[in-house]
Amino acid sequence: MATLLTEPTPRHEPDRFGRPDAGWRLRLYIIIFEADTRAGRAFDLTLLAFILISVTVVMLDSVEAISTRWGDLLTVLEWFFTVIFSIEYILRLLCVRKPKRYARSLFGVIDLLAILPTYLALFIPGLHSLIDVRVLRMLRIFRILKLGEYVREFSELGNAILATRRKIAVFLSFVLIVVVVMGTLMYVVEGPENGFTSVPVSVYWAISTLTTVGFGDITPKTDLGRLIASMMMLMGWGTLAVPTGIVSAEFAVRRINPEITTRTCHECLSEGHPSLAKFCADCGAKLPPYQLDAGEN
Amino acid sequence: MATLLTEPTPRHEPDRFGRPDAGWRLRLYIIIFEADTRAGRAFDLTLLAFILISVTVVMLDSVEAISTRWGDLLTVLEWFFTVIFSIEYILRLLCVRKPKRYARSLFGVIDLLAILPTYLALFIPGLHSLIDVRVLRMLRIFRILKLGEYVREFSELGNAILATRRKIAVFLSFVLIVVVVMGTLMYVVEGPENGFTSVPVSVYWAISTLTTVGFGDITPKTDLGRLIASMMMLMGWGTLAVPTGIVSAEFAVRRINPEITTRTCHECLSEGHPSLAKFCADCGAKLPPYQLDAGEN
Amino acid sequence: MATLLTEPTPRHEPDRFGRPDAGWRLRLYIIIFEADTRAGRAFDLTLLAFILISVTVVMLDSVEAISTRWGDLLTVLEWFFTVIFSIEYILRLLCVRKPKRYARSLFGVIDLLAILPTYLALFIPGLHSLIDVRVLRMLRIFRILKLGEYVREFSELGNAILATRRKIAVFLSFVLIVVVVMGTLMYVVEGPENGFTSVPVSVYWAISTLTTVGFGDITPKTDLGRLIASMMMLMGWGTLAVPTGIVSAEFAVRRINPEITTRTCHECLSEGHPSLAKFCADCGAKLPPYQLDAGEN
Amino acid sequence: MATLLTEPTPRHEPDRFGRPDAGWRLRLYIIIFEADTRAGRAFDLTLLAFILISVTVVMLDSVEAISTRWGDLLTVLEWFFTVIFSIEYILRLLCVRKPKRYARSLFGVIDLLAILPTYLALFIPGLHSLIDVRVLRMLRIFRILKLGEYVREFSELGNAILATRRKIAVFLSFVLIVVVVMGTLMYVVEGPENGFTSVPVSVYWAISTLTTVGFGDITPKTDLGRLIASMMMLMGWGTLAVPTGIVSAEFAVRRINPEITTRTCHECLSEGHPSLAKFCADCGAKLPPYQLDAGEN
Repeated sequence: MATLLTEPTPRHEPDRFGRPDAGWRLRLYIIIFEADTRAGRAFDLTLLAFILISVTVVMLDSVEAISTRWGDLLTVLEWFFTVIFSIEYILRLLCVRKPKRYARSLFGVIDLLAILPTYLALFIPGLHSLIDVRVLRMLRIFRILKLGEYVREFSELGNAILATRRKIAVFLSFVLIVVVVMGTLMYVVEGPENGFTSVPVSVYWAISTLTTVGFGDITPKTDLGRLIASMMMLMGWGTLAVPTGIVSAEFAVRRINPEITTRTCHECLSEGHPSLAKFCADCGAKLPPYQLDAGEN
Repeated sequence: MATLLTEPTPRHEPDRFGRPDAGWRLRLYIIIFEADTRAGRAFDLTLLAFILISVTVVMLDSVEAISTRWGDLLTVLEWFFTVIFSIEYILRLLCVRKPKRYARSLFGVIDLLAILPTYLALFIPGLHSLIDVRVLRMLRIFRILKLGEYVREFSELGNAILATRRKIAVFLSFVLIVVVVMGTLMYVVEGPENGFTSVPVSVYWAISTLTTVGFGDITPKTDLGRLIASMMMLMGWGTLAVPTGIVSAEFAVRRINPEITTRTCHECLSEGHPSLAKFCADCGAKLPPYQLDAGEN
Repeated sequence: MATLLTEPTPRHEPDRFGRPDAGWRLRLYIIIFEADTRAGRAFDLTLLAFILISVTVVMLDSVEAISTRWGDLLTVLEWFFTVIFSIEYILRLLCVRKPKRYARSLFGVIDLLAILPTYLALFIPGLHSLIDVRVLRMLRIFRILKLGEYVREFSELGNAILATRRKIAVFLSFVLIVVVVMGTLMYVVEGPENGFTSVPVSVYWAISTLTTVGFGDITPKTDLGRLIASMMMLMGWGTLAVPTGIVSAEFAVRRINPEITTRTCHECLSEGHPSLAKFCADCGAKLPPYQLDAGEN
Repeated sequence: MATLLTEPTPRHEPDRFGRPDAGWRLRLYIIIFEADTRAGRAFDLTLLAFILISVTVVMLDSVEAISTRWGDLLTVLEWFFTVIFSIEYILRLLCVRKPKRYARSLFGVIDLLAILPTYLALFIPGLHSLIDVRVLRMLRIFRILKLGEYVREFSELGNAILATRRKIAVFLSFVLIVVVVMGTLMYVVEGPENGFTSVPVSVYWAISTLTTVGFGDITPKTDLGRLIASMMMLMGWGTLAVPTGIVSAEFAVRRINPEITTRTCHECLSEGHPSLAKFCADCGAKLPPYQLDAGEN
């Protein structure tokens, strides 16, 4: 609870983009970037609603039966939301002291991507549906609820995946080597006449098989090809167990030893001592008594 | 075993709908709602058998070869069971003191849904097969066996999933954002000529791919589409590991520390004693009696 | 190690079928049923080889290109193995003292099933390929290697699955109810014109979707059907996590606390005390000091 | 860090192929086989880049649209890389003292396989794309980064899988027996007219179903076949949980007890100290230096 007192602005992002000191820019900044005032909260909720409706509009517009009948209304709505989001984007740029930093931040780029397609679609009609990437703005929902009940879960998920990122990188490299080898093999065995038209296509098939997706748009027809595919599937099964195992283990360890990275030796400041340890495993100093502080609720 | 003596009606639902005080309504209530008398048990078993047969009848009726030959018999049987279930539903309403509460409870709604389709099918023939939702009544099987050996497993499953519900909610929100973005991308890349006829359809494809179902009714045909699909499948693989990991970890922790933070020795203040322990495993002092406070509701 | 001394015949099945006392029947029994003499071991290995070749013969016989060319040879081979296995089966019946018990045991039934189809195929040609069920006889491989290195793994697997059988039973009942409800719903929504020709077929589709197999022989065509299917797939994903989590947790617990069912209180004979416990959690008596005896190797 | 001083050649493979004593062969050996000099590192990185480009060239060459247009350039590039790799292979053979040992080692065989197909393709054009197996040479990437941050993850993965290899062997034998039995059953039930053309093909179908790949190129058409397939899929689901559970448990145990039974304090005889610990966590005594004995080989 002490951190709450020393960190005065925990509900919004840390002051990365330069909080203005006073005036209309400060008032705007508080509404747009902070979420712990009434106005800020109302702004965020309105924004989320607008994003949701706007994404729905673009999705419906792509359904032919609907677009032929309600096309005009949907186009008006889409432009309405695009203009709203454009104004919001400009206001964001105006009210921060480091607008470049905001423009290059993750959410700055997403905010831009959310309005660009409508304008680009005037010139290149095909890009029209890309407006849907504005669903990415929904990621804000996690930021808004930052101190709410979801943040602990979210950061826990993030930490567990972060902690296993190197294991998963090693694993993915291995999988990529395997799918290239198997794809090439199947291309040679089955050949273009059975749907394996090129090595990249065969690699695509190998990935879809190894991940157990198995579309079935390309399938082995020869006996040898089916034998290789059978072995691949059994292999893929075992392989599937590896990342699952890595992440599961990470979660289990975090649930069992929540303090796995929190218990610190007062002498050498090394971290991560098990809850039952009495002495520091790095310098031999006596550890402070273990206190269980993070119960489930 | 002591709880059995102090809690006189552990075998049936707690007295939520108002147990009548005396007369035929009490006798009926005991038979229909309670399961620890001989008559109540017989009633429940008959009911389960009726539900099973009735569901089978509706399933068979939908098979053309069977319905053309045995159609009349099946229709008679279906009406027989519907009448039986209707009488049962009315009796349930009659014998409780708070019939509205029953009608709005989960099982009250299911009981109504189990008889409505037959009557509605008189007017709208298409709804006919919906009678099969009466299989939901089979959920009663868990209620009936409540104090049997299955209930501990059931509430354990429920608790583990309940405990991870927020992690899974966060995870599902993230997945939904991903499938909308990927679906839109594939719609733009592949277009209606390759089966991706609209954004909703593309999102459906993205879900079927990310969950590794991979029907294959819609598949990417262009090289770029296949590249994106390949990356999605590898991603989906990693993603699949997350909920599995969450639930696995929860189960593991529950198996290792069945009472993870709830039971404390009054003598040495050590925590985490199993629910069945009578003495503290650390100092040998007698533990306070265990109280089950977190039911499945 | 003590058990090895008190149980003199650990390498073969316990004396369930009546070991003869002397004579040719004893000699035959030792060869056929026991595996710790040189002759017994040779017999078992020959038998395994015969089973493997015989299964391969039947598999090859079903491939048209091979059967048209080598059909006669394969038929001769099949009859050769069938005669051999028939003689073996009769000898097994002859040399035990309780032949009925053997005939009704699991392996007795499998041994019969392994020879019946060849004879039955004389009358009903379609059953011919069923001879392949003799691959079930390969299960003997685990029995033969009984005291070898595989048995510990095998019984560990068995125990973990056995320990979770009730959780999995609850889970399967739940899944069955879900697939009937979802199958019926899809039958009503999609109807026979989109491939959902009957409720049983729709249930088959629901199972193939929920298990993420996704054959794609039947797929939703309507928008509503695809929406329901999308929700099913996301659900199925979460559901998939449950049995995996159950079994994973079981394995983890067994690996971490190998003594979970082995540590015994000398006072009240209760079992399963954690490795760190100093006092019996059931009677409060001091536990004997914990000895780690089962390392990995 | 002390191990780095006492073990002088940790960055390259142990001296398995005979490190020359002096002269140009030693200089070549250091560049080619060792990675801790500047020249050696540059050589390895160039090699990796060449392998990557070379694999890309072969993959592009198999795409018809590209090969018809850029065919000549790609052929030149392919021969360029083949010549480079051939020279490298010969130099490797020349500079080691035991060239036969190198030629028969895993990487020796891969190095040969990486150049053979180009030469063989002069005589047998179909083998052309097999050159892509040179992607296997990328496995060197793990060797090169040996003391980098990835190696700990890699050997951890390897150890966990190695530790569970017997459980998985038992499991795979069981799965193989199941797929042969189910494949045969489906062949008899569905027959060649529904796509189950032979027992091996049916076994291929059974594998694709049990692993939840579900291509959909072969699917049951009869009611009985679909019933059996439904049961198989539900079974396969549970089965899928087993290897995942085995590997997950192994990872969890390794994360919780990284040195599960191998490191012992000489003072208090407590076990299971982490590999990086310098002092006993139970009594504070200095631990004997940690020796890594179980390499990945």
